Amino acid sequence: MPAYKTPLRDLQFVLHEVLDSTTHYAAIGADDASTDMIDAIIIEAGKFCEEVLSPLNSVGDIEGCVYQDGTVTTPTGFPAAYQQWVENGWPSLAQPVEFGGQGLPASIGSVVSELISEANWSWGMYPGLSHGAMNTIEIHGTEEQKATYLTQLVSGAWTGTMCLTEPHCGSDLGTLKAKAELNADGSYAITGTKIFISSGEHDMAENIVHIVLARLPGAPEGTKGLSLFIVPKFLPDQSRNEVRCGAIEHKMGIHGNATCVMNFDGATGFLVGPEHAGLRCMFTFMNFARLGTAMQGVASAELSFQGALTYARERLAMRSLTGAKAPDLAADPIIVHPDVRRMLLTQKAFAEGGRMMLHDAGFMVDRVKQGATEAIRDDANELLSFITPIAKAFLTEVGTEAANHGVQIYGGHGFIREWGMEQIVRDNRISQLYEGTTGIQALDLLGRKVLMTQGDSLKRFTKLIHKLCQEMDGNSELQPLVEQLQAANKEWGDVTLQIGMKAMQNREEVGGAAVDYLMYSGYVMLAYYWLRMAQTAQAALATDTDERDFYLAKISTAQFYFARILPRTLSHKAMMLAGVDSIMALDESHFAF
Amino acid sequence: MPAYKTPLRDLQFVLHEVLDSTTHYAAIGADDASTDMIDAIIIEAGKFCEEVLSPLNSVGDIEGCVYQDGTVTTPTGFPAAYQQWVENGWPSLAQPVEFGGQGLPASIGSVVSELISEANWSWGMYPGLSHGAMNTIEIHGTEEQKATYLTQLVSGAWTGTMCLTEPHCGSDLGTLKAKAELNADGSYAITGTKIFISSGEHDMAENIVHIVLARLPGAPEGTKGLSLFIVPKFLPDQSRNEVRCGAIEHKMGIHGNATCVMNFDGATGFLVGPEHAGLRCMFTFMNFARLGTAMQGVASAELSFQGALTYARERLAMRSLTGAKAPDLAADPIIVHPDVRRMLLTQKAFAEGGRMMLHDAGFMVDRVKQGATEAIRDDANELLSFITPIAKAFLTEVGTEAANHGVQIYGGHGFIREWGMEQIVRDNRISQLYEGTTGIQALDLLGRKVLMTQGDSLKRFTKLIHKLCQEMDGNSELQPLVEQLQAANKEWGDVTLQIGMKAMQNREEVGGAAVDYLMYSGYVMLAYYWLRMAQTAQAALATDTDERDFYLAKISTAQFYFARILPRTLSHKAMMLAGVDSIMALDESHFAF
Repeated sequence: MPAYKTPLRDLQFVLHEVLDSTTHYAAIGADDASTDMIDAIIIEAGKFCEEVLSPLNSVGDIEGCVYQDGTVTTPTGFPAAYQQWVENGWPSLAQPVEFGGQGLPASIGSVVSELISEANWSWGMYPGLSHGAMNTIEIHGTEEQKATYLTQLVSGAWTGTMCLTEPHCGSDLGTLKAKAELNADGSYAITGTKIFISSGEHDMAENIVHIVLARLPGAPEGTKGLSLFIVPKFLPDQSRNEVRCGAIEHKMGIHGNATCVMNFDGATGFLVGPEHAGLRCMFTFMNFARLGTAMQGVASAELSFQGALTYARERLAMRSLTGAKAPDLAADPIIVHPDVRRMLLTQKAFAEGGRMMLHDAGFMVDRVKQGATEAIRDDANELLSFITPIAKAFLTEVGTEAANHGVQIYGGHGFIREWGMEQIVRDNRISQLYEGTTGIQALDLLGRKVLMTQGDSLKRFTKLIHKLCQEMDGNSELQPLVEQLQAANKEWGDVTLQIGMKAMQNREEVGGAAVDYLMYSGYVMLAYYWLRMAQTAQAALATDTDERDFYLAKISTAQFYFARILPRTLSHKAMMLAGVDSIMALDESHFAF
Repeated sequence: MPAYKTPLRDLQFVLHEVLDSTTHYAAIGADDASTDMIDAIIIEAGKFCEEVLSPLNSVGDIEGCVYQDGTVTTPTGFPAAYQQWVENGWPSLAQPVEFGGQGLPASIGSVVSELISEANWSWGMYPGLSHGAMNTIEIHGTEEQKATYLTQLVSGAWTGTMCLTEPHCGSDLGTLKAKAELNADGSYAITGTKIFISSGEHDMAENIVHIVLARLPGAPEGTKGLSLFIVPKFLPDQSRNEVRCGAIEHKMGIHGNATCVMNFDGATGFLVGPEHAGLRCMFTFMNFARLGTAMQGVASAELSFQGALTYARERLAMRSLTGAKAPDLAADPIIVHPDVRRMLLTQKAFAEGGRMMLHDAGFMVDRVKQGATEAIRDDANELLSFITPIAKAFLTEVGTEAANHGVQIYGGHGFIREWGMEQIVRDNRISQLYEGTTGIQALDLLGRKVLMTQGDSLKRFTKLIHKLCQEMDGNSELQPLVEQLQAANKEWGDVTLQIGMKAMQNREEVGGAAVDYLMYSGYVMLAYYWLRMAQTAQAALATDTDERDFYLAKISTAQFYFARILPRTLSHKAMMLAGVDSIMALDESHFAF
């Protein structure tokens, strides 16, 4: 596997140039987050990712985790790397000062997350899963719970999990069965089986704090009867709690992360948040968790692009159709071939465009948490809730596509483990499933976010696009792109209206159109981010820059995106508007004979 | 993994009803291939596939092959299954009578291949790879070579391989280095290293016959200096030849098949065919081999569809958007949800449509080999050479898509090994790479087949479509489909012309458009096959049939295909016509900074 390289220059471009980090951090009262400080963090975290985490990526894949009698041994080097990560204080970077954190904005935590995700996604899930637990306890926990658990999670001494899924239910949490019964001391006895618990058991930290969704006696049926509980592996009195790992899954990918079956056998738990409000409490940070998963798609695209680019420059095969480009060699490097370039540019457009989208979302998270006025916070929150399902589903879908292009560029070698390209496909595949499948995200977007707000949430975003296009109108070089985006933006509203009308006649139309609608939305949204990047690059080129090639590459990639990727909206539009009849016609018993 | 079920009824529909097998076999002088006989073969071979091969599919994946000191041990049960297969005479089914075969037409061999491919692709590659060796020796071998090798290959006592790829070259065979030097006895000493040799070493048969591409001393450079050699593992005098397996690859999938590094260390080889004509000799059956790989895509779609359909009927999650469909259960089976149906129908459309396409191609192979007149043979050959790159690349691409839908329908469980769905994704991924990548097939289609014949090969196929549409014109129920296909057919010619014009200005346009052109062509071609199936189904419905549901399902699936899949051509058209400029603009050194 080619060595991972921190995309420093690209992150600087996104954060400082396109998103104007200085103004942003000043506006949220985080003036200490200077350009220099951010760069230093990227360089330092990147060094760890390149030198420590990246080499462990294939180790984790090959060794996997080992389960024995309730314990899980993580791959060689994983615990030591985690120890080093904790000792250097990284877990507390963007956590509240009052619980031992360094108090930097969430967006800076996201930048560091990107690097970890690219270097070693499986390893990153051990510290990563703590975020759900930290957020739950920070927002809904008592002061005592914060003192007991949050400080240890912030330092990284302990890690956390989220225990939702059960064998019979994943997307449909309303039917979950784990139960919680009040003990005499005010704690609860938690009983049930949870599956697919990432980082549920491991040997990397001294304690694991499970946040468990369970049902109190007499609770309402469905999702309105669920409550949240803190269930630590070791109780505050150091005794071993009755929560044990019963098995780990054998999976397609992310072998380095333990996916656990967790058995709660009257385990002691502590209610967090109000009774029966478990799902609502979880929704308060669901957006952030989903953006974290979206990052896996971007990371996969970036890592696969890095590997494929190296190979495409070195591997020799055939001559360019327009004559030898490397006549001294036995054949031309395959990067001369248009189809190889098409695949590389597709990876590049998804990696860099996705990065742009996610760090813009990261800045929105900052504004939700620290915006100066309620109006700013609300606006950011509304925008974020619209972007989230698109980012999660679209970026993980195109992440898998990009990873597959990486395999394809390697030819037969792409299928072989030692090159590392096929691992990215296998690892990324889960991102389209967990934290809500693509189908679930699509229903959330079209049903809940767009149609239930009568299109208001969509308009909030299309206004941004409209504003950009107006700003850039008359820009001779980028004018074709501006016009293409303007047309797509108008069409986005039009197709939404059409589906809304259909849905009034037949609610199934929402389900039938949802995934095409989401992908359509993703391609338009990414076009917006590529045009913003082109705009920034163009402005830089008008100055006396010595980085002309860098900025020209941005414009060139934007042009590629508009010419060769954005037209995918044509098919998605036609398919979603074709309606649901042909999908619903066939009787369930007639699918096969 | 759900048990594999032979798609008997569907094969009967394709072979007997749509393709009119009785007329076909009579026309090629194979009157003994009656409907009853074909059905009996499908049932008998299907029973073996269901009972013996299918249970070994996950065994092969989990155990893989084991390499030690030059030997390869295949997974538990693989050799015994092969023994049983040979004892029952299956290898000789469609081989020439004069070499011990049963002399049935090639198309019947393809039908049996489909079943094996669906039940256990990795296992099927051991007998499957013999076909290349058999074809080579049958067409180009001396009588002595046929007597020595072909009879043993036909019976299945021995298996074969094709040794082409070397570490530095796969697609670009012109640069290969293996050398062949004349020995005093007229044999040759073969020296070199071949990689990615499927079934190169194993414990299933007593001898392995390698067909090796190598270069004679003083041979011309490039592909015109390659010759073919027979290099058996054991020589006719029983002595062990100096061809040995040096290692096996660790791969993303097809773990049950040994992918070998083969070292030839002065191994004794026998020239087959003329000197320096190796590549030309191989091209004589390249089409058949590529159709065999196309089968993997169809098989993956079918197997994944079977698994996903079972799960979608059983798994409960949420309620239908239009109210509970199974009010007595805790939730509705997920097959009620439009997006699940969309994915299932997509799998079904690819599996059944791909089956139709491939068995039509199988009948063309029969006509190439046994057509009554030269005109018939030539026409079939031309058609086949046009269809082959489309079938190979398009069907394997959509096979991977279908397999991924299967994973997606299972949600998180799809990522877990025990359900068997992720294995199909991993196994099928190689089909887009070997026997010529998708990119190579696309260049073959657009460059060699279409543009180099001035569009003649395309016209041969669009005429078939035109004829079908004329036949069906005025068909009130299917008229919208007929018109949609008619329009697509005309557009296919138009876009070809436009790309041809562009290519005259800039040859890179061919490479830049090729993959989009191939996928575009695949979707139109599949629409043709779905309309043919709808036509046949409609005719059956006009009779007093007691299988109304079966035929209605065909029409319903055709309608789904036209509404929800065929519109993918819109994007491919726009992207290929957008041209190559945005692909070629970026300097190689500016892809990353």
